[in-house]
Amino acid sequence: MNILLVGASGTVGQAVAKELEQTHTIIRAGRNGADVQVDLTSEDSIRHMYETIGRVDAVISTAGSTHFGPLSEMTPADNQKSIDSKIKGQVNLVLLGLDYVNDGGSFTLTSGILMDDPIKEGASAALANGAIKGFVTGAAIEMPRGIRINNVSPNVLVEALDSYGPYFRGYEAVPGERVALAYVKSVEGAQTGQTYEVY
Amino acid sequence: MNILLVGASGTVGQAVAKELEQTHTIIRAGRNGADVQVDLTSEDSIRHMYETIGRVDAVISTAGSTHFGPLSEMTPADNQKSIDSKIKGQVNLVLLGLDYVNDGGSFTLTSGILMDDPIKEGASAALANGAIKGFVTGAAIEMPRGIRINNVSPNVLVEALDSYGPYFRGYEAVPGERVALAYVKSVEGAQTGQTYEVY
Ligand SMILES: NC(=O)c1ccc[n+]([C@@H]2O[C@H](COP(=O)([O-])OP(=O)(O)OC[C@H]3O[C@@H](n4cnc5c(N)ncnc54)[C@H](OP(=O)(O)O)[C@@H]3O)[C@@H](O)[C@H]2O)c1
Ligand SMILES: NC(=O)c1ccc[n+]([C@@H]2O[C@H](COP(=O)([O-])OP(=O)(O)OC[C@H]3O[C@@H](n4cnc5c(N)ncnc54)[C@H](OP(=O)(O)O)[C@@H]3O)[C@@H](O)[C@H]2O)c1
Repeated sequence: MNILLVGASGTVGQAVAKELEQTHTIIRAGRNGADVQVDLTSEDSIRHMYETIGRVDAVISTAGSTHFGPLSEMTPADNQKSIDSKIKGQVNLVLLGLDYVNDGGSFTLTSGILMDDPIKEGASAALANGAIKGFVTGAAIEMPRGIRINNVSPNVLVEALDSYGPYFRGYEAVPGERVALAYVKSVEGAQTGQTYEVY
Repeated sequence: MNILLVGASGTVGQAVAKELEQTHTIIRAGRNGADVQVDLTSEDSIRHMYETIGRVDAVISTAGSTHFGPLSEMTPADNQKSIDSKIKGQVNLVLLGLDYVNDGGSFTLTSGILMDDPIKEGASAALANGAIKGFVTGAAIEMPRGIRINNVSPNVLVEALDSYGPYFRGYEAVPGERVALAYVKSVEGAQTGQTYEVY
């Protein structure tokens, strides 16, 4: 399959690419140094990306950043960052990409464990994760042409502990290799509307 | 208790007011004809409302609208309506209201069944509902001064069947009176971080 992977250079994206490139053609997308450039916070940029690459069999997003910070200090503007990037970025990737996915193809988005098992400073991330889960549940039942949509909700990755470790004390970090399997299941399987919790 | 109820004139809000006004003082808020005016889509309006009413013991939101329409026709701008109203409106009511809730008080937000049990044309609503659930889960563990936060996720109300009935064929509509109980539990109980599913 031809698979568009937005966020390919990231911690999750690298693990997903490593697994899927063994049997598929990966088109890597991101803001910097990828096969195709895209900034998910811009609708025009998403449109331009799809026009550039044309039709694919699967679209995966392992991109989308969120605001982390104490709830008492969080401003609406802080929270807006999560909305613009992780929520709208991923949802617009679907809304603007429907015509670019082949019949029977798929979308796979990324949420995360914080919506179920929260940490301090993570309320805005939990918001974004819940939004993605809700959207995938709702969108799955009316995707056209047999297109499927799922969501992978990873625990903190072993590979991310250097940066996020102090936030996730006591969490059983999962290897990227295990997280990548959920994306493979979404792309190559027949399920839709699922949230794969890799916890 | 002094309870601020945003959305008091709506289908859900009326049911909640009827139940709570028996033993509490309700301050009704909304865009039109309420005790205090507020438009949740405006941060300034939310700030102004809190400055007008001062401290309360509980804040309830039964407000927040969402876009309904076929997924294939949904534009990012359509989806923005749900984000601005049901997501940001409710979240900003919390972020900007923290200092206006007394010690040990509570916030209660509203999501809805579509994040769990979807209908056609409901993907944007499911997104908003999931976002609210995620935010409440995340925010609960770092609310200051013993303040709690919960979320009520109602099935379609019996009282709403006249308008929404055709969308919710086969759903077991719940009486507003039953939905109102979940808000009472949230306000008068000791639980936090909960999503009360009235399904
Ligand atoms: N790492 C974890 O342990 C973990 C656990 C659970 C969930 N998650 C979730 O998984 C997602 C990815 O996390 P990660 O740790 O892999 O992040 P990361 O290492 O920071 O990588 C992010 C990737 O997305 C791209 N990207 C960022 N913003 C973008 C934008 N606006 N438009 C297009 N591409 C963009 C980045 O490339 P460019 O900078 O070149 O654009 C990069 O490839 C996040 O939503 C995160 O919350 C991560
Ligand atoms: N009705 C149901 O069966 C049902 C089921 C599940 C979930 N829900 C959810 O419950 C919430 C309320 O639904 P409802 O049916 O009660 O709605 P509704 O009858 O349309 O009432 C909405 C209420 O919110 C106020 N409002 C609307 N937009 C506002 C804004 N921007 N700022 C401040 N106040 C605003 C309205 O008053 P003004 O117009 O005067 O501002 C009104 O009081 C929605 O989020 C809905 O998705 C409803």
